[in-house]
This record gives sequence, structure tokens and C-alpha cells, in this order.
Amino acid sequence: MTDALTQDLRALLGAAHVLTGEDAQPYLTDWRKLVQGNARLVARPGTTDDVAAVMRLCAAHGVPVTPQGGNTGQVAGGVPGAEGDGVLLSLARLNRVRAIDTDNDTITVEAGCVLQSVQQAAEAAGRLFPLSLGAEGSCMIGGNLGTNAGGTQVLRYGNARELCLGLEVVLADGEIWHGLRGLRKDNSGYDLRDLFIGSEGTLGIITAATLKLFPLPAARCTALAALGSIHDAARFLARCRAGFHATLTGFELMSGACLRLVVETYSQQRAPFATLDAPWYVLVEISDAEDEPHALARLEAVLGAALEAGEIADVAIAQSTAQADALWHLRESITLALAEDGKCLKHDVSLPVSAVPHFVESTDAALQQHFPGVRNFTFGHLGDGNLHYNVARPEAADDATLHAMQPGLSNLVHDAVHGLGGSISAEQGIGRVRTADLARYKQPVELRLMRAIKQAIDPGGLLNPGVLLP
Amino acid sequence: MTDALTQDLRALLGAAHVLTGEDAQPYLTDWRKLVQGNARLVARPGTTDDVAAVMRLCAAHGVPVTPQGGNTGQVAGGVPGAEGDGVLLSLARLNRVRAIDTDNDTITVEAGCVLQSVQQAAEAAGRLFPLSLGAEGSCMIGGNLGTNAGGTQVLRYGNARELCLGLEVVLADGEIWHGLRGLRKDNSGYDLRDLFIGSEGTLGIITAATLKLFPLPAARCTALAALGSIHDAARFLARCRAGFHATLTGFELMSGACLRLVVETYSQQRAPFATLDAPWYVLVEISDAEDEPHALARLEAVLGAALEAGEIADVAIAQSTAQADALWHLRESITLALAEDGKCLKHDVSLPVSAVPHFVESTDAALQQHFPGVRNFTFGHLGDGNLHYNVARPEAADDATLHAMQPGLSNLVHDAVHGLGGSISAEQGIGRVRTADLARYKQPVELRLMRAIKQAIDPGGLLNPGVLLP
Repeated sequence: MTDALTQDLRALLGAAHVLTGEDAQPYLTDWRKLVQGNARLVARPGTTDDVAAVMRLCAAHGVPVTPQGGNTGQVAGGVPGAEGDGVLLSLARLNRVRAIDTDNDTITVEAGCVLQSVQQAAEAAGRLFPLSLGAEGSCMIGGNLGTNAGGTQVLRYGNARELCLGLEVVLADGEIWHGLRGLRKDNSGYDLRDLFIGSEGTLGIITAATLKLFPLPAARCTALAALGSIHDAARFLARCRAGFHATLTGFELMSGACLRLVVETYSQQRAPFATLDAPWYVLVEISDAEDEPHALARLEAVLGAALEAGEIADVAIAQSTAQADALWHLRESITLALAEDGKCLKHDVSLPVSAVPHFVESTDAALQQHFPGVRNFTFGHLGDGNLHYNVARPEAADDATLHAMQPGLSNLVHDAVHGLGGSISAEQGIGRVRTADLARYKQPVELRLMRAIKQAIDPGGLLNPGVLLP
Repeated sequence: MTDALTQDLRALLGAAHVLTGEDAQPYLTDWRKLVQGNARLVARPGTTDDVAAVMRLCAAHGVPVTPQGGNTGQVAGGVPGAEGDGVLLSLARLNRVRAIDTDNDTITVEAGCVLQSVQQAAEAAGRLFPLSLGAEGSCMIGGNLGTNAGGTQVLRYGNARELCLGLEVVLADGEIWHGLRGLRKDNSGYDLRDLFIGSEGTLGIITAATLKLFPLPAARCTALAALGSIHDAARFLARCRAGFHATLTGFELMSGACLRLVVETYSQQRAPFATLDAPWYVLVEISDAEDEPHALARLEAVLGAALEAGEIADVAIAQSTAQADALWHLRESITLALAEDGKCLKHDVSLPVSAVPHFVESTDAALQQHFPGVRNFTFGHLGDGNLHYNVARPEAADDATLHAMQPGLSNLVHDAVHGLGGSISAEQGIGRVRTADLARYKQPVELRLMRAIKQAIDPGGLLNPGVLLP
């Protein structure tokens, strides 16, 4: 017995693009397996007009819709809840590059384009699309915009929000907003674009975007520095900002514990130092407009001065692309090495950069007081004030012990962040996982404004219920 | 006979800060004298709490409020309409710098701070606050954010929107949103900040902001190039972007007519060329992280290659700060020279950069066909696709002739902009002057979303009625 909505959607999209039962399962769990959701069906429209038609049908039947891109989110914002009454709408078939305009330095892509394919299309046109993050081989640009993705190049180029000039959005009633403008300046009315960006699919379905492109760097140079304290890291960042200005494209902080875990876990990986006993390391990357000799000379000048000032204890400058890749590989292996170590409690927080040293020192100490033996594996994008503040079980304990610590431990961390003017979600969003945290830390007036906006734009509450809004 | 609201406001703020009659007049007309408004009184609160108390009183009496900063807007968005039933709320007394955090590269200022004083406070702390525009000596940062101001440094640093990390806002009911966060990454909920920025006081009253700071350039170098065609300007921009990357901080296009008008109007001003017969000129500025010799060498290398490629016909590189200032002074004198020439029809438009050459050529030609003899004085921020497309009366005609042409002529210009995917307001906003244009060019779905948001956040319609929304 097939219901009317399913029949209508099959007629619209073809039976091959309306999935149920086993075929639907891969779409219903997030990759971290935090949430096992249900849906009456998975719809896979291939065009914006079909997305609009799906939304009109769902609105007519009063059926909620969860939009999904690459399903690589960290907070289960792209999978439905357990109710099973809704439609999972996959944007994966909207995967065309619609236009590249090198004179305007813009690219227009559909929501289902994999991030890496956008980077590649830009590079083939002699341009850089700088958004870069771990999941770039499978995440999709619609999801990147829906969650305002961050990553490693934010210091120079900003978040996904800052890289987007225009959007095409299907609203809850199926109407299409044609906002694919490639304009650097447009003060004609409210900023609808930034309202949809980061709204995690709760206000509309992003179907395409016009994005900024940049010149390709003439040379990239990378170095790894060892530091004696977290306070030195803040001073070193200030020196790099002043010395490199906008050529500073990476400033990745890693605790010594993170780096030691990587080389212990993956024996083929080596750090460029005889010992790894410094408490902190920083990976510095610059992207130069001139050439490699100029980039290396700049890097040597600024890092040399930092050595002389005692802000860094040691430094290794990559002399080849292979050496640079090896340094970045150390950084990118932290998450996998942590997973090998067992479960860990992850906190994706941001702080004013000036508050980071105090936060790390006082929170590390408070954890040892209240949860003796837990192990900190802190790393992150220091230039953005963004820390991945990870806490692993004590050596002698098991995952269940850590699990039992979770509510109290995470509240301790988040209370400290909140007390210093920080955010409990720097780059990953709220999803289904952090709605209770949002209710705990957001001001009542902010929650009231958010609910009023949701009610104004999606009065039926059809778009991604259970996500973002507590 | 004094009404209850006036009495309450005098008790709250002191009689000296509640102005009526003659004292109120300076606040009720915009500086371009486009609108002569009326108000029952002018309130000058000195703190955010007082702004909130004013709003609570006005809400209780159902009295509309027009917020005003430096009253330097181009579209009369900061003055009331003719009704005379409302309150003009001046933010000028909220003029403190609340904090500078050089480790976080942020400054927190109140809405009534004059832009130039924010620039100076940043510079005193060894940092750059890059927002820069003609009115910087009297415009206020609250108005800059309320209108998402642009200016000459957008190419590198973005509009006011991109320079703002956090806001403090008083809502229509007097509640205060404490959103002064100094975070580069914060994905905890809808982007309320960007909704208030550019809303021209119709959604809330910005009382303070946390803004981004940047390193001071080690050297600034400036050049003036003569070009043979508008197509060359687009090619020259692409070369400068590729050659200078983020050190390119200025790329100001000026027609030969603009430059000739300046040197004819102000005999003490000289262009660095023997003749001024090129159709287009571009002022190029770079801001270097190293030193002046490096900056000059880079400028010479890239501009030399442009000369060789025939993209520019001639170039003069300023060899001193005085010479650079003289080049910028030419650019900044265009508006004043135009005012000396008589009335002119101004259009503040933006386009994809790739569409600018066609727009200029085809629109100039269409104007001559429909309005023979009118004179174009086009200049603007080409790197942002932002043109100030000014049209002056035919030599032999008077201002009244031009005035009679206005509706048809402006519609011709704006239709052309709209047809090429551009915006009829690049950096000046909508205010009271352009609401009919907004109704003409905005998609119905955009107007519907804007009205729904307005209704959700200011259900009583008390904030700046008559501005922005048609």
C-alpha cells in the first residue's frame, strides 16, 4: 500500500529516485553514528525545479523534510529524527558547475557538488577556491554553506559565509529565491543570503551558490615550530600576522600530546625534530604572490626573529612540497590517531584569541581536579580562536568511564568557554546533537529572535525539524 | 502643554537631551537636503540602557523612532518622514571606545563614534581599521553598520559587514541583545548580526560593535594609469589581482571626463601626465607587509608588464607620500567638482566585474540616443564592480531640463543594471529615496521574505517607518 505522497513523488522524479526500505538506509544515519533516523522515503531530485516541486508536494501533505548533502556533518544535522514521518531530500544529484567567470572571479555551482570538485574546477580555470577541510573529498558545497563550514584557511579567506556572494534557495512552500548574484557590493535590502547560510536547512534548501575565487598562490611554504608555552603561541601568532599580513594562510596549533600520539600511532610518520617533548607546536603556512625564493626568505626572516625573541624554541622549514605535505599530514592525522586511541569527548569551541592561553591552562587544571587522569588532546586553528578541545579517558580507564563523565565534563568545558565570551560551536554547527547546549548558553533574546525568524520563514515548521532550534 | 512621552523622556534623559522646536531642526533634514522631516522631539540618550529605556517608553506610547548617527547618508535613511509623530533618536552621545584587544585584533566601540576616531584609536594601538570613505570625519560607526558602508578599501578588506564580529542592539520593545562577541568563528544559531547590519535601523538600534583590526601596512604605494578603453580596465584589474593578491588595496576607476573636470575646476590640482586625453584612468594602491623599496619594486614589475602588454597606455608612480596624496586627492575631488558643475543624476550601482565594460558602453550609447547631449561622469571602485554612474545635463541645458529627464533616465540606467544581474544600490542603501526602485527591481519573493522578517522582529512597525521597505 503506497501513500499518495510517495506516488506523487515517483511520478515526479521517477521510481529510481524515490528510495524506501533498505535502499533508504544509508541516508538515515550520520557518519559518526550518533543518530539513527527514520523517514518514509528518500527523494533524489535532479534539478532546482524538481526540488521546488518536491517541497510543494510535501507542503501540501504537511510532511517535514530533512535536506542532506554529503552527510559528513559532525552534529547529525543532515539526518532525520526517529519519528519516520518525513522525507529525506538528497541534493546529491544537483552536482553541476553552472558557470565560471574568471573576469569576475566567481564560480556558480549546484548544492550537490563535492567540495573537492569545486576546488578542482577553480584550479582548472587558474583560480583558487580556498575552502578546505578534512571531509573535502565527500562533503558537498550546499552542506558547507548550510553549516557555514570553517576549516584550515579561515584565517586568510574567512568561513564559507565570507566566500559566498549569492544563493539559490527553495523555500518551505516550494517557491524559489533566485539570488545567484555575483556582486561584491549590494545594499538593496535585508541580508537574506547570510540568514540561510548557517541555518542548517531549517529556513530553506540551498540549491546553488555563486562563490568567490582568488588568484592561485605562486608559492606555498610551510614550517613547524616548537613552543615552550601556550602564551608563546599567542605572541608568535601576533608576530606572524604583523610579518606576513594576508600571506599567512595557516596557523595550526597542536599540543605535544597530539603530535606524540600521531607518531606513536603511525610509525611511518616522523616529526622533523629529534625529540617531541615541547608542550606545543604550531604549523605555519604562507601563500606568496611572488615565487618560492621570496616566500622562503620571508618565512626565514619572520621565524628567525621569533626564534631570537624566544617565542619559539625550534623550527623546521619544509624545503620541498613533499616535506610540506608531510607536515600537513601530521596535523591531519590527529583525528584518526585519536580514534585509534578510543572514544574521546570532543568540544569544537572558539574564544577571543587573547583568551585562549588562560582558557587552556585553567580548564586543563580544572579537569584534573574534577576528573583526575583524563588526557587532553588539544589542537585547532589558533588564528581563528578555534580549538578542538578533546578529552580522552584516563590511561587505566575504559570508554564507559569516559562516557559516564561526559555531561559534567562537557558542561565544565563549555561553562569555561561561555564565561570567557566564547562559542560552544565554532565551525560544526548545532545539528541534533547540541540543541540542549544551545538552550543552556544562548541568551533568551537570541532564542526568541531565532524562533520568530523561523516562524516567519517556515511557519509550518516543515524544514529540518529537530535540528538547530531547541 | 507637554505630552506624557516628552515628560517621561525629560525625566529619563534630562531636559538638555530632549530637543524640540528650533533645537531639533538640524536633525530633521538629511545633508543632501533631499528630505525635510518632522518629529515631536529629538532624544539624545548617553548609554545603551538609556536607549533601551527610550525604546520602552516609545513602544508603550506606540510612537515610531528614527535612529540617527552622523546624518551623512546619501539616501535620507536617518531622518524621519513628514508625519511629525515620531521620535528622532540620536546616537551621537554614545561615543566611547569600550575596549581594544590587540591580541585578538578587535576594537569595541559605541555607535556614536565617528569613523575617523575609530581609525585613530586603532592606529594608536598599532593596528589598522580599514573602513574608509569620504564622510569619515563625520559619519558614525553605528550608521556605517546600519547601512553596511563600503568605500575605497572593500577590494581588500570587505564592506562594513565583513569588518564586524559582534553587535549590541536595542530591539523595538527595549530589550537589549548583548552580542558583542569577538569571535572569528561562531556557528551557534542564525546569523542575527548580519540581519541587523544593512537593515538601516528598521529591525533594531545598533548601540555598539566589536570590529576587526589588521596589521598596519609597512608601506603604501600609489600609481595612476591611463587606459585606452574600459575593456583594458577589466584586463588590467585581472593582472593586478594576480600580481598583487591581497596587497592590492585600491583600484579606483575614473573616466577621463571626471579627471579633466577636476583639474579644470581646481586649478591648483594637476594630473601627472602632460595631457589628459585618455578615456579612462585607474588609481592603483598597494599596501605592503615589507617596506617601501619592496612595494615600489612590485608596483614597477606589475605595472611595467601591463604597459608592455598594452593594457595601460601610460603610468605615473608616486615617489613620495605627498605625490600619493595628490593622486588620491584627484580621485576624492570628483564629487565636489561635479557639485560645482551643477545638479547631476547619481546612480550607485554594482555589476559583476565582467559585465562592467558592456554596461558602460551600451548604457552611454543608449543615453545619447534617448537623452542627446547628457554628459557621463563615471567613476567607482572597479575591483568591487561598483560604479558611481553620474549623468549631468547637456552643456546648453539647465538643471530643470535634467530634472525633467530624471525618471526615464534613471529607469534606463537601472534597467540596464538589473538586466546584467547588478544591484541598484551598491553601497549607499535604500533609505527614503530608493524605496520605489526597490519595489521595481526586487523579486516578489524577496520583498515577501523581508516583510515577514520585519513583522517578526518589529511587529509594531515602530523602527524607522518609511525607510528601506517599500
